[in-house]
Amino acid sequence: MVTRRKSFLSPHKPVEPLNHLHHVKIVVIGASAAGLKAACRARRLLTGASVTVLEEGQYISYAACGLPYYLSGDIDEARQLMMTAYDVEKTPDYFLKTKGVQVLTGVRAVRIDAAGKQVNATDLASNESSEYPYDDLIIATGATPIKPSIPGIESPGVFSFIRLEDAIKLRQALNKNEIERVAIIGAGYIGCELCESFKALWGVETVLFEQKEQILPQLLDAEMSQIAALELKRQGIEVHTDVNITEIKTAGDKLSVFLDKLGEFKGFDRIIYAVGVQPRSDLAKQAGANIGVSGGIIVDAQMRTNLPQVYAVGDCVLSNHAVTGKPVYLPLGSSANRMGRVAANTIAGIKDAFGPVCGSSCLKLFNLNIAATGLTAQAAREAGFSILESWGVFTDKAHYYPEHKLISAKIVFEAESLRILGIQAVGFGEINGIIDILSEYIKRKANLKELWDIEHAYSPPYANALHPIHFLSYAGVAQAHRKLKAVNPRQVEAAAVDSTVLDVREEIEVKEKPFRYACRSLLTIPFTQVRDRLNEIPATYPILVVCQRGTRSAETVRILIETGFQKVSYAGGGLGFFLDP
Amino acid sequence: MVTRRKSFLSPHKPVEPLNHLHHVKIVVIGASAAGLKAACRARRLLTGASVTVLEEGQYISYAACGLPYYLSGDIDEARQLMMTAYDVEKTPDYFLKTKGVQVLTGVRAVRIDAAGKQVNATDLASNESSEYPYDDLIIATGATPIKPSIPGIESPGVFSFIRLEDAIKLRQALNKNEIERVAIIGAGYIGCELCESFKALWGVETVLFEQKEQILPQLLDAEMSQIAALELKRQGIEVHTDVNITEIKTAGDKLSVFLDKLGEFKGFDRIIYAVGVQPRSDLAKQAGANIGVSGGIIVDAQMRTNLPQVYAVGDCVLSNHAVTGKPVYLPLGSSANRMGRVAANTIAGIKDAFGPVCGSSCLKLFNLNIAATGLTAQAAREAGFSILESWGVFTDKAHYYPEHKLISAKIVFEAESLRILGIQAVGFGEINGIIDILSEYIKRKANLKELWDIEHAYSPPYANALHPIHFLSYAGVAQAHRKLKAVNPRQVEAAAVDSTVLDVREEIEVKEKPFRYACRSLLTIPFTQVRDRLNEIPATYPILVVCQRGTRSAETVRILIETGFQKVSYAGGGLGFFLDP
Repeated sequence: MVTRRKSFLSPHKPVEPLNHLHHVKIVVIGASAAGLKAACRARRLLTGASVTVLEEGQYISYAACGLPYYLSGDIDEARQLMMTAYDVEKTPDYFLKTKGVQVLTGVRAVRIDAAGKQVNATDLASNESSEYPYDDLIIATGATPIKPSIPGIESPGVFSFIRLEDAIKLRQALNKNEIERVAIIGAGYIGCELCESFKALWGVETVLFEQKEQILPQLLDAEMSQIAALELKRQGIEVHTDVNITEIKTAGDKLSVFLDKLGEFKGFDRIIYAVGVQPRSDLAKQAGANIGVSGGIIVDAQMRTNLPQVYAVGDCVLSNHAVTGKPVYLPLGSSANRMGRVAANTIAGIKDAFGPVCGSSCLKLFNLNIAATGLTAQAAREAGFSILESWGVFTDKAHYYPEHKLISAKIVFEAESLRILGIQAVGFGEINGIIDILSEYIKRKANLKELWDIEHAYSPPYANALHPIHFLSYAGVAQAHRKLKAVNPRQVEAAAVDSTVLDVREEIEVKEKPFRYACRSLLTIPFTQVRDRLNEIPATYPILVVCQRGTRSAETVRILIETGFQKVSYAGGGLGFFLDP
Repeated sequence: MVTRRKSFLSPHKPVEPLNHLHHVKIVVIGASAAGLKAACRARRLLTGASVTVLEEGQYISYAACGLPYYLSGDIDEARQLMMTAYDVEKTPDYFLKTKGVQVLTGVRAVRIDAAGKQVNATDLASNESSEYPYDDLIIATGATPIKPSIPGIESPGVFSFIRLEDAIKLRQALNKNEIERVAIIGAGYIGCELCESFKALWGVETVLFEQKEQILPQLLDAEMSQIAALELKRQGIEVHTDVNITEIKTAGDKLSVFLDKLGEFKGFDRIIYAVGVQPRSDLAKQAGANIGVSGGIIVDAQMRTNLPQVYAVGDCVLSNHAVTGKPVYLPLGSSANRMGRVAANTIAGIKDAFGPVCGSSCLKLFNLNIAATGLTAQAAREAGFSILESWGVFTDKAHYYPEHKLISAKIVFEAESLRILGIQAVGFGEINGIIDILSEYIKRKANLKELWDIEHAYSPPYANALHPIHFLSYAGVAQAHRKLKAVNPRQVEAAAVDSTVLDVREEIEVKEKPFRYACRSLLTIPFTQVRDRLNEIPATYPILVVCQRGTRSAETVRILIETGFQKVSYAGGGLGFFLDP
């Protein structure tokens, strides 16, 4: 066994560069992001190490997250997904020459002999077997699409969308105008991205089916999801949620989808299922590695499995969730890269750790930007948290600056401790910054009040003097401690029915977009006149105050409470929450 | 004195909403962002409080940071800078009706009687004096432009640019085509923004003069500043740094500027000086408030001055710098808002604290985005830190995603402890996120290795799988501990002279943009061939490795060191650092 250099990078003990050889054999199974990252870094740190990557496929190191943009035509050629930033193709030869790492394609690992410390593999071309002994083994077998058990799912024309091979076939069909109508099964982020891929440039008639009651159920709560669904509708995508597909049938050269509730949808040229992925952990499991939820390989923060000198990284492993503290399967490209690095550092004796993770992710949905991290309100409730939520609608730049765009954001937090559990943002403006600031706070279990003093770079073309995170934390704390009750934007309609609704928008706003829900009584007093016209407001409870974005109505609630009104609440995020066109 | 509610918002003791009256008198001097924020929130928290704001000017609550965009024509009317997001003008009547706060314009506070707890003021229209007794006083007197002591600075046609009145006059002159050529004195962020204001739409011939050797000296180190200077040049701005203005003269209806080194520059229709601002702290000082560096009012984290029940907020106070731990004058719009809130919370007995601050700020310079926080390398050295720096050039989206743009960023950190001291970013793509993530780490004195595991939302249209912060921290730690020496991009030219330069870019890159500096010898071996062609590299030291962005050259240095080469360094940030067109 190779001698490990302990605490190689501890802050106060820099050591000399490595200049002796490490006669260590490292084998990596899988030439995707995580596996190659681990391989290259291990080789870089351990001079003289022999690093071999076994890959059953022919394509290596391609940017899988870029596949929807290759399909859409935004990216011309599949080859571009395999290029470095300096336009060199990342072939096995590239890895050998630049990284000193041997990548063997068309070689399938068939068994890990953990006791004998070797991997048995088959060369798919020659069908020959061979053994790859290792000192350290890194498993990076990735994920495989979950195939829904629907009769007909194996029909020609039905695709998954995770491998480059699939994307190439679909793109060729698009190039040849063979696809006029497509069905997408599953409204997770890949399913949603595919709507844009098929529709935006190619104009393919696209129908999206989702079993859950909303699109993007992992990422967004229902009310945020509605904003995304509205954008799909605007872009001409047909969306059906809360439906089960009972069968896929072929009729001539077309495909039909049968739904439990809505019957037959016909005339599809292709059907894509994107109902999630599952870890490819069979090899690891057979070798005796511990497997956990969702079939993911269990690893520690150093990416070690329970098997000696066996590591696992990327889409085949479980992470530790920063909020729940529990193992979770979160296959993310950003995590894969960091995991690969941690495994290599660990093998080289450099102190490093991966996670816990919040699950930060984002997607582009036509003109809409969507991002989230931590738990949704629904997931938080399911995890047993007693929560509150705080919403806001903001401009991404100063509201007087031209080209500003609207964004909606919400924070989910624990009611008692104010601990931040998650954040979601959806909008036409820049939102990633909001999410990326918060992940660190979520990880260290910060409470909402710690956000009062965050510091951001402000100038009118980029931001407001106060950040959306400031407002969300103010509104959240006001809810928790000052009992300023905010109604979930999705429940405003239901809450209105029995309420005296007080609309505090300006006359012109009300005229342009009147309050549209049924209510017990509707009163319109612009916010600028509320203090003067308090006597017009009947003490007929409950009172629901509404405005465009939630700020005026929240402030009105304060005024009403201070003057003795009771049972007053406001529409969180206002009526503009849904970004109606 | 009013009874304060202590720890009103402590996480575990939510209290009932305030529903009794607070017979407290609060006086605020100054109706800018900080003063009005404090006034409105104090009134909101302390029901029944009498809150009076004294403002000597006529314009209140306008967005001062928006003035350059009003001047530029991006914003049509000055009135837009005074509107709420729902298009209501923020007049004294607005504040009275919606906030319950009385704003008196044209009333100048002339003396604070701290012992008698009253403010003496003069009504500027009637010249009448009056007294405003207070229980709590908030000083928000703001800042005033520093007027350089140049003969002729008082000439007609010479302006400062901080007040709306100045902006209106200049805009009127632009509207009437009265300005064909303008001189701007001072290349701080206002001076730089004004270059765009005059040039972009109006096409005014614009000459920028700066005493220091670079533009934006407070915000950026020299090598980052060069990128900004290049953009100014591209946009047709004439820039002169390292110059002193000795005199301003009027000749007919034109103005001339005389420089110590470059002689006379003539034909200006207007001259704007923007050499910084200073706190307006005279009133506070006369009343006995402690005054510190730059003439700023000294306050604690609750915005309390040393005078009983006297607070100060906004551009007239000092902050505590997060890196140096020392008082610093950082007048920022974002800070002003948060300070106002903290003062009000403190008065109402809600636990809150402002700062320390890193000084996060940003500006738009034509097509270039610029942002920074913490200390520059130069400021860090001046503060006595022994530092290292790490540079990188990145794409703001995945490099294979269309419309990606280049950005340059650098981190400054303490050599021994790896403590993060500052970050700067300049580029054509989104950069604020980078800065905003870092401010929190800087505040809590995090070290560079803590950035290895930051979590960001990744998808090709928004980011790379690894964040620029990941790369900067990797490269920084490699410098500190693995002794991979990076040469400051600005010193590459000087370092090349005595070096064997090894250019590891691909042939096509070298052909397009050959290495342009004189050097002892120049060797071109593409990174993809370095391992195979090591024997061609002479052991003629020092060796300086260069590439486009710094990644290939850094990796080459590793390869050379592992194979026994010595005295090898690389161009930090690569040759693409300056974003040549």
